[in-house]
Amino acid sequence: MSRIAYVNGEYVEHAKAGVHIEDRGYQFADGVYEVCEVWQGKLVDGPRHLDRLERSLRELRIDMPMSRAALTFVMKEVIRRNLVRHGLVYMQVTRGVARRDHFFPLQPVAPSLVITSKSTNPRAGDKQAETGIAVVSHPENRWPRVDIKTVGLLPNVLAKQHARDQGAKEAWYVDANGYVTEGGSTNAWIVTKDGVLVTRPAESGILKGITRAVVLDLVAREGIRFEERAFSLEEAFEAREAFVTAASTLVMPVVQLDGRPIGNGHPGTIATRLRQEFHTASHLEEIR
Amino acid sequence: MSRIAYVNGEYVEHAKAGVHIEDRGYQFADGVYEVCEVWQGKLVDGPRHLDRLERSLRELRIDMPMSRAALTFVMKEVIRRNLVRHGLVYMQVTRGVARRDHFFPLQPVAPSLVITSKSTNPRAGDKQAETGIAVVSHPENRWPRVDIKTVGLLPNVLAKQHARDQGAKEAWYVDANGYVTEGGSTNAWIVTKDGVLVTRPAESGILKGITRAVVLDLVAREGIRFEERAFSLEEAFEAREAFVTAASTLVMPVVQLDGRPIGNGHPGTIATRLRQEFHTASHLEEIR
Repeated sequence: MSRIAYVNGEYVEHAKAGVHIEDRGYQFADGVYEVCEVWQGKLVDGPRHLDRLERSLRELRIDMPMSRAALTFVMKEVIRRNLVRHGLVYMQVTRGVARRDHFFPLQPVAPSLVITSKSTNPRAGDKQAETGIAVVSHPENRWPRVDIKTVGLLPNVLAKQHARDQGAKEAWYVDANGYVTEGGSTNAWIVTKDGVLVTRPAESGILKGITRAVVLDLVAREGIRFEERAFSLEEAFEAREAFVTAASTLVMPVVQLDGRPIGNGHPGTIATRLRQEFHTASHLEEIR
Repeated sequence: MSRIAYVNGEYVEHAKAGVHIEDRGYQFADGVYEVCEVWQGKLVDGPRHLDRLERSLRELRIDMPMSRAALTFVMKEVIRRNLVRHGLVYMQVTRGVARRDHFFPLQPVAPSLVITSKSTNPRAGDKQAETGIAVVSHPENRWPRVDIKTVGLLPNVLAKQHARDQGAKEAWYVDANGYVTEGGSTNAWIVTKDGVLVTRPAESGILKGITRAVVLDLVAREGIRFEERAFSLEEAFEAREAFVTAASTLVMPVVQLDGRPIGNGHPGTIATRLRQEFHTASHLEEIR
């Protein structure tokens, strides 16, 4: 079976799926995206991802390409057509195709919409979580509007590649004041040496992660001691445990930071518990 | 005659020219570009644009898609096939197509190469230069690596659209210290009230413009009083004249800044002279 993608109104073979060379996503990174998890044949946290998509588009003055109901239908259809039971669904919306000019097109054009889905090994993430990942710090060097989930990800690509070059899986951005903002594609969390779970407020400087929001619900429900505040790299070095969150990794323990072990160098108990409980707090939607 | 584009080895109808949905230019802004002027049937400053392209690619660890000689041949061929005598040629190189993942592809992939060319009205720019353009200031909010000419242009798009929303044609970025860095797609220049031409050094914080470099050659040749240093927005308000430079606009007088007239509110004599002399200093290459 060949993979199927949805591109601007059509379901096409993934291998042949293309967009125009003057799609503003290609020439200007003038677009946004969302990635949702597919778990046990269910779409995870669809409504929250659509809320954020709508917000991102509004901030850029791009129209929704179709209604939320229609978008949800197409996402599910792409998942179905690719027989994905565990994996991800990716949705990208750009301002559309127009003769190259920085300004928004004078004649309104239809936004472009691409949706893909892929299967992932459901055991791979859990296996990774059993050992945890290494993270390296990286100076924050992105523009301030990281609250918009744009496809302008080159800084993130370079930061994450810098991490990989050092044998790590993620980069943690550190701002000019020495505080961790977030990861290259994840939100960052620590459990302090006093046992308090800490993550940065999402008012500015980071993306308001959907997985982050679900974990916050779970933390409240479970009565875990928690403070929403910025933490420094120094504090992270002394943390009892650390982890990252994203739809693609869920809750992933961090066991090493800049080559130094976090806590005892093994995945922490709070991270492990939050990972195990995650889907009890997330919104699950039947796909068929 | 329909427009022709070059896309990854083929000359195709522009209307049908596409790239894959998983081209990293589309999903990550993981690519760079160049725009050269075509003037009187000649390619303007090709070698300098190729120098900069090579540097941008090197900074991102992307291979040149083909040799400089081959690139020059294809650029000229695209110009020829589109019968462009006055206009622009656009060249975009991305890291290539790979299954979505922030990290550079583990299996090396071929870079993607797109080249397009379009005719512009040779009189339109000159006519605009007779009246000049308005500019508005905008807080600098791009990442620090603006020395790399990446397609991650969304901040520039938004700044320029902000300018247009106020009836202006360009935005001038102003850094945290009150100094002008550059325009959304141009370099920024003033002539001080004392008659000294000033533009910011290109060591950091701005793109090293090719048109800027040619104008610097011209300034030296003509013995115009010049200082390469940052200038503040306050100094710009008091300037005798101002202008911007880019391959697409050449030397374009600025007559208004944040709604206030620059000098006497008309194009300045130095800007006008530099515009008129521009092609005597630029590198011109026969296309056929």
